[in-house]
Amino acid sequence: MDTKKLVVGIDIGGTNTKFGMVDRIGNIYVEENISTPFYRVFDDYINAVKDVIVKLEKNVENAEIIGIGIGAPNGNHNTGAIALAANLPWTGILPIVAKLQKFFPSTCIVLDNDANAAAIGEMIYGGAAKMRDFLFVTLGTGVGSGFVANGEMIYGHDGLAGELGHVIVEKNGRECGCGRCGCLETYASAPGIKRTVSELLSKSNEDSVFRHKSLDEFEAKNITEAAQNGDKIAIAAFRITGEILGLALANAVAITVPEAIFLFGGLAKSGNFIFEPTIAAFERNILKFWKDKIKILPSELQNKDVSILGSASLAWNSINKGSL
Amino acid sequence: MDTKKLVVGIDIGGTNTKFGMVDRIGNIYVEENISTPFYRVFDDYINAVKDVIVKLEKNVENAEIIGIGIGAPNGNHNTGAIALAANLPWTGILPIVAKLQKFFPSTCIVLDNDANAAAIGEMIYGGAAKMRDFLFVTLGTGVGSGFVANGEMIYGHDGLAGELGHVIVEKNGRECGCGRCGCLETYASAPGIKRTVSELLSKSNEDSVFRHKSLDEFEAKNITEAAQNGDKIAIAAFRITGEILGLALANAVAITVPEAIFLFGGLAKSGNFIFEPTIAAFERNILKFWKDKIKILPSELQNKDVSILGSASLAWNSINKGSL
Repeated sequence: MDTKKLVVGIDIGGTNTKFGMVDRIGNIYVEENISTPFYRVFDDYINAVKDVIVKLEKNVENAEIIGIGIGAPNGNHNTGAIALAANLPWTGILPIVAKLQKFFPSTCIVLDNDANAAAIGEMIYGGAAKMRDFLFVTLGTGVGSGFVANGEMIYGHDGLAGELGHVIVEKNGRECGCGRCGCLETYASAPGIKRTVSELLSKSNEDSVFRHKSLDEFEAKNITEAAQNGDKIAIAAFRITGEILGLALANAVAITVPEAIFLFGGLAKSGNFIFEPTIAAFERNILKFWKDKIKILPSELQNKDVSILGSASLAWNSINKGSL
Repeated sequence: MDTKKLVVGIDIGGTNTKFGMVDRIGNIYVEENISTPFYRVFDDYINAVKDVIVKLEKNVENAEIIGIGIGAPNGNHNTGAIALAANLPWTGILPIVAKLQKFFPSTCIVLDNDANAAAIGEMIYGGAAKMRDFLFVTLGTGVGSGFVANGEMIYGHDGLAGELGHVIVEKNGRECGCGRCGCLETYASAPGIKRTVSELLSKSNEDSVFRHKSLDEFEAKNITEAAQNGDKIAIAAFRITGEILGLALANAVAITVPEAIFLFGGLAKSGNFIFEPTIAAFERNILKFWKDKIKILPSELQNKDVSILGSASLAWNSINKGSL
């Protein structure tokens, strides 16, 4: 009987570390969870991760683990290390690939950050399956991105490329967590659209459900609900967000010219409220020979388990390239 | 006796088509020129190009032509065709690679646009020799660019990627030849800095040599001379140009994170007048983990025959990859 070739996708979050055994077409066989902060010492955590992988392999009949993909905040593909991740319990540089490789010396092990893992996930399991040039953008707590060109993720010289969220879109704009002002992330993320609602409330006399709430009390998804109920402030906030995002995407396209742009994350779930103004601004700001040629699409991983699939896809992508 | 393996670099301009036989390390053996507009029919031009190549090979003892690299306005690497080049005498899509390949069926023939050819030239013969990630920017009549990531030029889905000059840097900014407003090219090119001088003259009462000339009468290089002579308007024009260029480069870096950025062309020849304000703005606008890490350098091809070397490098780059 043939063995079932699978990879383990590992998503390292500040609260949980999630594991899943995944095949080439995205079926998830078994899953497992461990607490990330339970392990104060990084080597203890590595031992626990190793134990889960060994256990998972035993749980699927005839399974053979041929790869391990790891998505982690600040995971660096080039170095195989996690560097200075603010929401993980360990400090400094964490060479997770080298440490796991000692336990699994002949297994392909790949690390990347969450946004790149999701982008590779779109390429292996989603809408970018046959594309060699695309852009994947996550609109969540922040704005993350992965640029794929010539069939390869653009990692840059230091492995940290693809920071579309930190392109400056407004000179002297909003304060960003990065210490600068005017980054795309301060406008096109979930907190960014809340800031836009706040700005609109200050400028306009229009009534809105958000006049009666503090910024702490509402979430970005409430803005979608309000827009659906016809709240003019909410609708205007989406329009402004889309205008800024559309211009930023048009500028990024001038550099990399993708076949398509995939939007993912909380804001992307708002559907046409965000897609319509984004596409309109994108088409208005793009060079004429790209007009109506570059698709802006919702990610096909939006309603799937992207953390497991994205991580697993890192290993499959690496295995695919090795077999070419 | 061993044959001397050479490539032919061909630079197609609106006035002349230049040819040179070039070895792997950038020695140019023989050169030749033909008039481009002399050939009204594209097929006649192709025949003339073929004849020159055959003649060149005979002129160098023991030479073997193993590649042909062609740099041309609107040359598309992906399709091997020149499309709608405004300053060439032929209309429509010109499949130059396919047509030449018929005469030289076993020779590697590569087409690209001028800016990409110069960028590959920097990689094969210049300062980017050992770099896998760099950005090459030409500051001339327009602003051209070539982005190399993972050792490969980013061509994008349609072969037209790398249009840094058409990133919009000022909303509702200066009118651009592309039909939009605020493109980097309207500020950081030779005509762009002239426009900045004009703007400064309107805003300030400062005396300047340019108060006594029409825009037609002076060239960008006169602005360098004036700056050297202490003309405050000229110096301010460079500072403003550098500020806009530095921010645009910082934003591009957030996407591709090159090891270095090479500046080439007329404006780059102005030395510290352009480099100092550009580097200052770049460092001020860049994400903190890239501060002081990415070099902005003058192109090492600046005083060489870049049109021949850039075109020749296209063939060498392709041959190098084939032999890996």
